[in-house]
Amino acid sequence: MSILTRPIFEINLKNLLKNYQTLQKIASHAIAAAVVKDDAYGLGAERVAQYLYEKAGCRCFFVAHGIEGEIVRKAAPEAQIYVLQGIGEDSLESFKNAHLIPVISSPQMLEFWKKNRFFDTKVMINIETGLNRLGFREKELEALSPEDKDLFGCVMSHLACGDEKDHFMNEHQLSNFKRLKEKFFPNLRASLSASDGTFLGAKFQFDIVRLGAALYGINTAPYRENQMLPVVTLKAPVLQIADLPKGDFVGYSATYRAASERKIAIVSIGYGDGVPRALSNVGKLFFPRGDKLFEARIIGRISMDNIICDITDIPDVEFGEYAFLLNDFYTLDDMGRDAGTISYEILSRLGKNPRKILVENKG
Amino acid sequence: MSILTRPIFEINLKNLLKNYQTLQKIASHAIAAAVVKDDAYGLGAERVAQYLYEKAGCRCFFVAHGIEGEIVRKAAPEAQIYVLQGIGEDSLESFKNAHLIPVISSPQMLEFWKKNRFFDTKVMINIETGLNRLGFREKELEALSPEDKDLFGCVMSHLACGDEKDHFMNEHQLSNFKRLKEKFFPNLRASLSASDGTFLGAKFQFDIVRLGAALYGINTAPYRENQMLPVVTLKAPVLQIADLPKGDFVGYSATYRAASERKIAIVSIGYGDGVPRALSNVGKLFFPRGDKLFEARIIGRISMDNIICDITDIPDVEFGEYAFLLNDFYTLDDMGRDAGTISYEILSRLGKNPRKILVENKG
Repeated sequence: MSILTRPIFEINLKNLLKNYQTLQKIASHAIAAAVVKDDAYGLGAERVAQYLYEKAGCRCFFVAHGIEGEIVRKAAPEAQIYVLQGIGEDSLESFKNAHLIPVISSPQMLEFWKKNRFFDTKVMINIETGLNRLGFREKELEALSPEDKDLFGCVMSHLACGDEKDHFMNEHQLSNFKRLKEKFFPNLRASLSASDGTFLGAKFQFDIVRLGAALYGINTAPYRENQMLPVVTLKAPVLQIADLPKGDFVGYSATYRAASERKIAIVSIGYGDGVPRALSNVGKLFFPRGDKLFEARIIGRISMDNIICDITDIPDVEFGEYAFLLNDFYTLDDMGRDAGTISYEILSRLGKNPRKILVENKG
Repeated sequence: MSILTRPIFEINLKNLLKNYQTLQKIASHAIAAAVVKDDAYGLGAERVAQYLYEKAGCRCFFVAHGIEGEIVRKAAPEAQIYVLQGIGEDSLESFKNAHLIPVISSPQMLEFWKKNRFFDTKVMINIETGLNRLGFREKELEALSPEDKDLFGCVMSHLACGDEKDHFMNEHQLSNFKRLKEKFFPNLRASLSASDGTFLGAKFQFDIVRLGAALYGINTAPYRENQMLPVVTLKAPVLQIADLPKGDFVGYSATYRAASERKIAIVSIGYGDGVPRALSNVGKLFFPRGDKLFEARIIGRISMDNIICDITDIPDVEFGEYAFLLNDFYTLDDMGRDAGTISYEILSRLGKNPRKILVENKG
């Protein structure tokens, strides 16, 4: 028996590397760029970039913000680092400091770039093909001068429904992308797909694939079994075990009431650690017993620091034992589904928990 | 017109101080302790503790984890710092380094404390009165020896439904707390209430009130108008403005389709910045125009870095203009309600966004 209080978040960098290599094979004719925005989806941009730079020879990275690019530059001195949100007055210094390459998404941003160019490197242009998010619209592309066009070395767009194999939007965007590229940038390199699009096949891969979610173990092709290895494990210690009398309520707002006598465990992790509160009365924790994995239902509201679960049917739960929130069986995708959101959001939140114990598994 | 990419999160420390003072008046006979766990609900534990220590003379703080206590100690050299999750093998060093006071919640933790005591300071005992979370059960209290009891200087418990004025649980827990205190710890100081219980009146306040959520502007007494001042503002720049043709889809999975031609703005913030993805197609952004505040509906899925909103009816939206996600009118509580959760979770997430620009308003 132990007394323990802190959750443990384990990052399996070896699996992350294997995922990168698997994806590289799937897109063997393209450059496999690593997307490490949002602090590498919460896993640590510097850590992930450095590992892929050193172990996999990755030389192309994508971030969202200039300030993120500065962090990646520390880990990847010789890499190309593209910034998806582009360049602005509030990020110009980051671009200069770290020699970042902006993705230009509007005529207005292009004007800013022309006034503030600090190197001759050709930049990337983002064009709109159906997502209706960032990117030049066709009318705006028509207004580009030959000199404007000459500033670009690569053209990109982004799929809306790449995780749904047969969604009509995929072919629709692909044909838009090919048409616009031919019309305006016939000689440029091209990048259309993130992880999900990469799985849609060679015609979606072009010259650069932008690999984010799948690297981190998320199934971006949910129409088939996940080909990625899990990268994160999350567990937290049982801080208390108690009997729950029949008729007693549990947690804030008394949302659970015991219909019979139960045994409960209070586990030292909560939404303050990034576990979605939406799992209240819905989610589950796992207790391994030999080669079996027992499920303990979360009961009552998840609070900032604690989760209460029903361990009535689990043999011999002990103080200080770790209950698993994520493991190789119950993954980010499973938790996302149970919480009514996507695994991307789950990962982005969990990784930012500052009070966890972080364990790196480098194999 | 500007080109800007980064969200701005503003913390109004002056209002936080006023909230503390208001709460101090409401609980004028009790010690007003500041709860700065979970990195002060994301606002920065060191920042908040230092401000309250220096400006308000706060000398009593609560955190959840030992490692959080170490951070608070830097800001509050002479304060008492209580640790709600208690002490364990994985936090003992933090307790020693920073002279933290554990809240002991089980006989097992008490044994650990007895073996590892590093100072003579009396510690706090947490007793269970109806929440069914951490705390000694009555049977366990009966087993305490006089020597055990002598280790404690204060007894605490925690309300389940303190934000619902007339919930039967409040009186139920109050009477349990008084009875158990009288029976086992008649001479100890007592603490029952967090922010919500503090508003329930003097009989809930005892010797120490533990002020967290209300400090940060959250309405913990939602049965009446909020008496707290807002502490956070969140805004993000418009990175692009575009026409949305009739029939076009917006965002991932094409969950929004334009029934008529619309004008849209792409705003540079997303769930990677802590904005709940649950606000997709539900939430709104605000554009101030003179003394009016125009509402722009979020359309399509919120993505990691961007939100798309409908600005068709908003006059003269400009590139680089800031759209507000939180302001004095639309608060954390409003966002929590719209996202199907509570403001506590919203705040805990937003504050941990590492790529925001942080502005401190010290008045």
